Amino acid sequence: MKLIRFGEADHEKPGILDRQGKRRDLSSVFTDWDRKFFQQGGMDSLKKHMENLEVFPEVPDSARWGACVARPGKVICIGLNYSDHAAESGMALPMEPIIFQKGANTVVGPYDNILIPRKSEKTDWEVELGIVIGKDARYLDSVEDAKNYIAGYCISHDVSERAFQLERGGQWTKGKSCDNFNPLGPFLSTTDDIADVHQLPMSLWVNGVQMQKGNTNTMVFDCYFIVHYLSQFMTLEAGDLISTGTPPGVGLGMKPPQYLKAGDVVELAIEGLGRQKQICVNA
Amino acid sequence: MKLIRFGEADHEKPGILDRQGKRRDLSSVFTDWDRKFFQQGGMDSLKKHMENLEVFPEVPDSARWGACVARPGKVICIGLNYSDHAAESGMALPMEPIIFQKGANTVVGPYDNILIPRKSEKTDWEVELGIVIGKDARYLDSVEDAKNYIAGYCISHDVSERAFQLERGGQWTKGKSCDNFNPLGPFLSTTDDIADVHQLPMSLWVNGVQMQKGNTNTMVFDCYFIVHYLSQFMTLEAGDLISTGTPPGVGLGMKPPQYLKAGDVVELAIEGLGRQKQICVNA
Repeated sequence: MKLIRFGEADHEKPGILDRQGKRRDLSSVFTDWDRKFFQQGGMDSLKKHMENLEVFPEVPDSARWGACVARPGKVICIGLNYSDHAAESGMALPMEPIIFQKGANTVVGPYDNILIPRKSEKTDWEVELGIVIGKDARYLDSVEDAKNYIAGYCISHDVSERAFQLERGGQWTKGKSCDNFNPLGPFLSTTDDIADVHQLPMSLWVNGVQMQKGNTNTMVFDCYFIVHYLSQFMTLEAGDLISTGTPPGVGLGMKPPQYLKAGDVVELAIEGLGRQKQICVNA
Repeated sequence: MKLIRFGEADHEKPGILDRQGKRRDLSSVFTDWDRKFFQQGGMDSLKKHMENLEVFPEVPDSARWGACVARPGKVICIGLNYSDHAAESGMALPMEPIIFQKGANTVVGPYDNILIPRKSEKTDWEVELGIVIGKDARYLDSVEDAKNYIAGYCISHDVSERAFQLERGGQWTKGKSCDNFNPLGPFLSTTDDIADVHQLPMSLWVNGVQMQKGNTNTMVFDCYFIVHYLSQFMTLEAGDLISTGTPPGVGLGMKPPQYLKAGDVVELAIEGLGRQKQICVNA
């Protein structure tokens, strides 16, 4: 299943992409793709509607694409999680996952604008595979068990301001939690729709030029390891988002470094998870 | 005004402490002390009820105290923000605020248990002044203007696992976002109830022995500076929580270091903001 949301920001409604790629409005049956939905077994109810999606109205083409799930309770990110990206940066592989958080209010639609923060000179891109948690996970017994706690996957754009992140003292939060810094979607693909989540090519283009090229098969810590690992520190709640790190090709790593400016167009793709496109504008 | 919440976890109702210190149930008029309430001018509506609180039923003494506001959209913390704590730690004062985030699901009631995480050996305490945002704040023009965006103040216990925070790679999140790591309350004091927020004695005891003793007058960056500063990076939303740093006396700074174990009793107080008490239990 491919879950989508549509409508004005903060007033999105839940929908589904049908086999023809049409958006169907399921707001007559479901309130939102949020924690409550996942936690109360909403995915099972949803499955029952998949055979007769034609009874649900089509979403008008003009309707905005929202983030594919409701605002997460928390957004956890994994740093330096691609071996080829670490090599490119000349950094040693981490012994265990590096984790940090973004404000959940950074999550926006896959085609919404990237806001270049005021006084920013180093706004950078990061295509990432996003994991959405399907039920509350705490102290999971095994890595294998983690599979049962994942609702699905999507593209997560971990936009980052490098000066704010690295040159303004202390932790990374300042450069990671600026407004609109996490376009999410266009759709959440449920796990059964992805043959092997650890064999997905991923790409990012700026103004049509490919900047990032990678594959989830070079992840240092895979999705199941990450979910199990995080659950040893905190409860991952249904609806939470985990962004799993970025492959080579970010602006910070270029010689000389290259950053985003107003008017730039960024496109992101992960195989099986669709495509994002954002225009950069000044905040 | 002193806002409180009561009832079972995840089902709290809003209330008020009256002049006699009795909890009054205001759930017949208000849904919750949450973003919507603050954003939609709920504080003004609330004021109108203050002169006849006796019409609202008393909350039974047996009812649990919840966190004083609904789960925040985000929890931002300021690191190393007390000059005497920095001196004690032998660390230089930060040039600008060090910020990090806790998962918002760490927020619990002021008398709920502290959960010592599994495999934890270094669970530590931190009494802090909490700021709750009263309306969305973005790119504020001046430090002075920040006052208008603060709903009130409360005690915020920034429980921390030092090994997870400092010895497990990368950022601080791992040691800051464990379950129940942010007891909040007992009440939110609105700004008009606090004569000078930067002249408040604060204390923390473990098993009756005073460990932390400080005063908000040794903050490096004061509350208004912090709110203005953060608003230059991100939208602070109504209902968001900012924990403003801890004074001297944390377990990590003792010689030898001292940490919490199951059975320990922690009490916290800030003048004008009441008192918290937690028992430590193993997760």
